[in-house]
Amino acid sequence: MSLLVVGSIALDSIFTPFGETADALGGSAVYFSVAGSLLHPVQVVGVVGNDYPVAELERLASRGIDWSGVERADGESFRWKGKYSYDLQSRETLETRLGVFADFQPKLPDAFRSAKFLFLGNIDPELQLGVLSQVTQPTLVVCDTMNYWIQSKKAALLELLARVDVLMVNDGEARELSGDWNIHRAGRWILAHGPKRVVIKQGEHGALLIEPTRTFYVPAYPLETVFDPTGAGDAFAGGFMAYLARTGIVSDEHIRRAMVVGATMGSYAVEQFGIRGFDPVTLADVGRRVRAFEDLTHVSLAETLA
Amino acid sequence: MSLLVVGSIALDSIFTPFGETADALGGSAVYFSVAGSLLHPVQVVGVVGNDYPVAELERLASRGIDWSGVERADGESFRWKGKYSYDLQSRETLETRLGVFADFQPKLPDAFRSAKFLFLGNIDPELQLGVLSQVTQPTLVVCDTMNYWIQSKKAALLELLARVDVLMVNDGEARELSGDWNIHRAGRWILAHGPKRVVIKQGEHGALLIEPTRTFYVPAYPLETVFDPTGAGDAFAGGFMAYLARTGIVSDEHIRRAMVVGATMGSYAVEQFGIRGFDPVTLADVGRRVRAFEDLTHVSLAETLA
Repeated sequence: MSLLVVGSIALDSIFTPFGETADALGGSAVYFSVAGSLLHPVQVVGVVGNDYPVAELERLASRGIDWSGVERADGESFRWKGKYSYDLQSRETLETRLGVFADFQPKLPDAFRSAKFLFLGNIDPELQLGVLSQVTQPTLVVCDTMNYWIQSKKAALLELLARVDVLMVNDGEARELSGDWNIHRAGRWILAHGPKRVVIKQGEHGALLIEPTRTFYVPAYPLETVFDPTGAGDAFAGGFMAYLARTGIVSDEHIRRAMVVGATMGSYAVEQFGIRGFDPVTLADVGRRVRAFEDLTHVSLAETLA
Repeated sequence: MSLLVVGSIALDSIFTPFGETADALGGSAVYFSVAGSLLHPVQVVGVVGNDYPVAELERLASRGIDWSGVERADGESFRWKGKYSYDLQSRETLETRLGVFADFQPKLPDAFRSAKFLFLGNIDPELQLGVLSQVTQPTLVVCDTMNYWIQSKKAALLELLARVDVLMVNDGEARELSGDWNIHRAGRWILAHGPKRVVIKQGEHGALLIEPTRTFYVPAYPLETVFDPTGAGDAFAGGFMAYLARTGIVSDEHIRRAMVVGATMGSYAVEQFGIRGFDPVTLADVGRRVRAFEDLTHVSLAETLA
């Protein structure tokens, strides 16, 4: 079933203890689609300036990414510059230049309006609402957000929350949105505001799926080399959504499998700088790493202390 | 099979955003044995001063805790005073008074020397070695340590590591001991120094079991109320060891189950101040909570993307 993402298409300059990149392909829509397209074709809505290396995007089209919904506007592309701490546990934003993103008004090509799986990447919640209203009958709508919108556009964000199926955020965002430091109470707060499910990404500690009566936990794939955490959350989202779009089934069990596919994609994202970690990855590789999660948490408890 | 713990028996004064306690029963041996005795009798080796409320310890004896290896020395008992941050994510030690612990030389009663399951709680590694040498033929030896000993008694600690089966520490300690911020590489470093297994406790993020060729992850039990993280790690150790001592089997699968029992005990520890969280808990309660972990991580991956 068709899968659509709206989000940023950026040029990232990243400093880590292991090296740096300048003006590398990045942004939520890019990480999402590079990861997701390993499993399923992805339609992208976004905007780039006339300085964007469009040829690099076009090369990615062969993976099954449809860039026809990306507007080319007059001006500078969205740029983000950030620096990670020595242990990659925290990062500082050095510079954000919105460029053409400042006046972006997403308009979906007609062919995209029938998308069944919709991911509203981290952009202004008013724009997320605008995209949502252009999709005629989605099967599953998942959205992301960040502290900036929580602080500046809370009303629009709450309006959006009431209309999406899943909110997918990191732990700090869940805490800030709910005003509660306890991650499980924060999840309850979000469920009470609309979504049927909440996915809380916790970086090297994995991710939580909070539902009204169940909680699921997927660990991070154990990695002895981590180079660049940028984009891990969007790659997670790409794997999560593409797995569901590929199977076309949104059952409790499939959502749990999608969490594992998401965690797998997050692990590829952090193994190299930028989107490079995905270069050598095949669908068969993804399958093997996904199935390796089984041994990571498997234990027989049915008879334990029974 | 018999289970022995050596560790601190303390009086804790704890400040949290939700309240405070003064001179409450605490210390690694106390948390360990209160948790462990829900599953299996525990023999304790330690020391208290003549100001210790020994009657409170004696009341706990009815749970199956044998305090006959606790020395009563002339002087002040070990005291710890600490304060937690508003989100319980960090704590500051306000005061540590070693008291009679400063000159403690553990001496095992003859009846304790045949212990099969031995937990060397966080004390001077020279004392841990002294206790280990007094146990004739242990089946499983697990030890804990902390930054203070890593910094001041590294040689003795490395000598100890070469002689234990499992090192059980928190993530900060594993990083400091190995000098590596990557938790999986830190685990490899520790395995290379003796232990066959490493358990790395990560608080609200659960715990990792790192073995030469496999890694296992147990999440923390989802709690919407957490009052006091003190003692969670020692309660984890108590559950882990008591489950193995109860079954008498140290297989890969039983070790994984022991991890879940440990995580369960950690959850009781944090739900109330001090050791109070264990007051109402029965063995049947423990079993129910242990088995609830099954749904927390269960997902069928064998056919996923195969």
